[in-house]
Amino acid sequence: MPDLRKDPIVGRWVIIAENRAKRPQDYTAAFQSRRKRPCPFCEGNEHLTPEEIVACRASGTERNREGWRIRVVANKYPALVLEGDIHQHQDGMYQAMHGVGAHEVIIESPRHLVTTSELAETELCEVLAVYRDRLAALRRDGRLAYGLVFKNVGAAAGASLEHLHSQLIATPVVPVSVQEEIAGSLAFYRDRGKCVYCAMIGQELAAPSRVVLTTPGFIAFEPFASRFPFETWVVPSRHASHYEDAGNAEIEELAGVMKQVVGRIETVLEQPAYNYVVHTAPFDADDLAHYHWHIEIMPRVTGVAGFEWGAGFHINPVSPEQAAALLREEAPGHHESETFLTREIG
Amino acid sequence: MPDLRKDPIVGRWVIIAENRAKRPQDYTAAFQSRRKRPCPFCEGNEHLTPEEIVACRASGTERNREGWRIRVVANKYPALVLEGDIHQHQDGMYQAMHGVGAHEVIIESPRHLVTTSELAETELCEVLAVYRDRLAALRRDGRLAYGLVFKNVGAAAGASLEHLHSQLIATPVVPVSVQEEIAGSLAFYRDRGKCVYCAMIGQELAAPSRVVLTTPGFIAFEPFASRFPFETWVVPSRHASHYEDAGNAEIEELAGVMKQVVGRIETVLEQPAYNYVVHTAPFDADDLAHYHWHIEIMPRVTGVAGFEWGAGFHINPVSPEQAAALLREEAPGHHESETFLTREIG
Repeated sequence: MPDLRKDPIVGRWVIIAENRAKRPQDYTAAFQSRRKRPCPFCEGNEHLTPEEIVACRASGTERNREGWRIRVVANKYPALVLEGDIHQHQDGMYQAMHGVGAHEVIIESPRHLVTTSELAETELCEVLAVYRDRLAALRRDGRLAYGLVFKNVGAAAGASLEHLHSQLIATPVVPVSVQEEIAGSLAFYRDRGKCVYCAMIGQELAAPSRVVLTTPGFIAFEPFASRFPFETWVVPSRHASHYEDAGNAEIEELAGVMKQVVGRIETVLEQPAYNYVVHTAPFDADDLAHYHWHIEIMPRVTGVAGFEWGAGFHINPVSPEQAAALLREEAPGHHESETFLTREIG
Repeated sequence: MPDLRKDPIVGRWVIIAENRAKRPQDYTAAFQSRRKRPCPFCEGNEHLTPEEIVACRASGTERNREGWRIRVVANKYPALVLEGDIHQHQDGMYQAMHGVGAHEVIIESPRHLVTTSELAETELCEVLAVYRDRLAALRRDGRLAYGLVFKNVGAAAGASLEHLHSQLIATPVVPVSVQEEIAGSLAFYRDRGKCVYCAMIGQELAAPSRVVLTTPGFIAFEPFASRFPFETWVVPSRHASHYEDAGNAEIEELAGVMKQVVGRIETVLEQPAYNYVVHTAPFDADDLAHYHWHIEIMPRVTGVAGFEWGAGFHINPVSPEQAAALLREEAPGHHESETFLTREIG
């Protein structure tokens, strides 16, 4: 069973999951291209994955067979396992617990697509609804404290398979970054009497130099203190702390926004590797007035070096204002087609 | 001038340094191999770097000319600039300040070496002494709050030049990761009445499954909650909070330990990319009973994906106990030469 271990200094949890390292390519982040071997996520290769947990499939088709639109399966090399007790234990000054949790893969299409913008809006809508439904299901497991949905696209973003998929890891502890985010939001709320994300939306709309696009229900913008070039946050205008409580209409609108935003980032940066992460409240929290779910998209065009690891301090060579201006230019109907990479920046 | 910006939620500072992005390769982390163009760090090419700040050179040789053993120069694409006032300013709810600080490059050899283990122990000793002396010098600048010394080796670790060098970035704020480390250490000290690093040394020596090597003055071990495969910490046995206060004898001993440890990591992982970072106390802190300087070495063989960015939660496929055992086997005189990458892990 994997081991969850807590750093005694900063309280950061780490998963020690040795089964993932059976083969060197499992930790050297080798990238399996579609040419090398049959893709386990393509329709017809269902036998190459672990058992299906749920799927969106045509009526009359069989589990673990063809006919699906989206499949959720357990990760073949899980970081955490679902069976067992959490069993906190102490090793001298160190704290650890069994690596109990869920590690699911959400295969987003039966076709061998490689990025979110290739999905039709209706397909992406169904994917985003699956995120919601899996989070809601795992929230009912009393052992689990948090569910993190994320996507890795491209080797530089940590993807080991090319076929379009997301992952959901549910952990028995609230991750330290989430704790910090919630604590920071609460401090702002206590100080100013409002949600920090709602306040950001207000300020960004009032002076929209960092805004990429808005719809009635969403805003996409480059955060003021962007860590990465073209880092983009997609935030619902309506205050809500839990992604899994989003309604169907909201998910539909989100699909349109995500397809647009990812598509524009890909045009400007010429198909970069990227991650996106759904930030949502912990499972056991009720509706929080101080926290606001959102999605953070992080293109991975700059390396992460010693300064970032040592200091948590990022150096971003592209201002969010410049990034937002370039992403706005890519709006449909806007006819400039020059890309960022071919342009000299003043 | 670069802009320092603070995330309003978690208090993380970011440097927006647009001058670094004049050419696309400056942010796409292109890796310049020795073949492509003259290496600006090689002896004879001193005119290709900014002015020398200090150097260790043969007597009678001229500044910015040949004859040096170590050269410290300003970074050609600095993340921070030394001239100017800090000038904190507010932009609505956002906080920012001018990007004042130092960004120095420490060129560690006139020869085109690419990794620390290629330095003779006496050469490495002089490099480590330069770190100390530069930190001590910058500490005297009242505008600066912290000095971070770090090294990037290999493209996967963020290096853009191959020739062996380190960097020193001194910032006008204490980086958030350092703040967290100091706060965590202080909490442990208040709770248990001792330094958390001293306590770790005690526990690691008592049950040395994670120990790589010890000398009278140092211990090198894999931390209990290692984030990365073969993450190794080098910690002085004697309690001290500031690296820049280390004596010559201590630096000499440290050089031997670093050469050994980096060399063994390179043998086992077959020349991996890696970062190392000197963790030391903030400039304005007096000797701290609760904080302990040390060096963290982080091989970069696994990718950093959405889970890590989203949750601050790392998945490490190699246990620190297994890593330590493999690194102990590489002790001089030990005759096994099989490497980790060619071995099946059970």
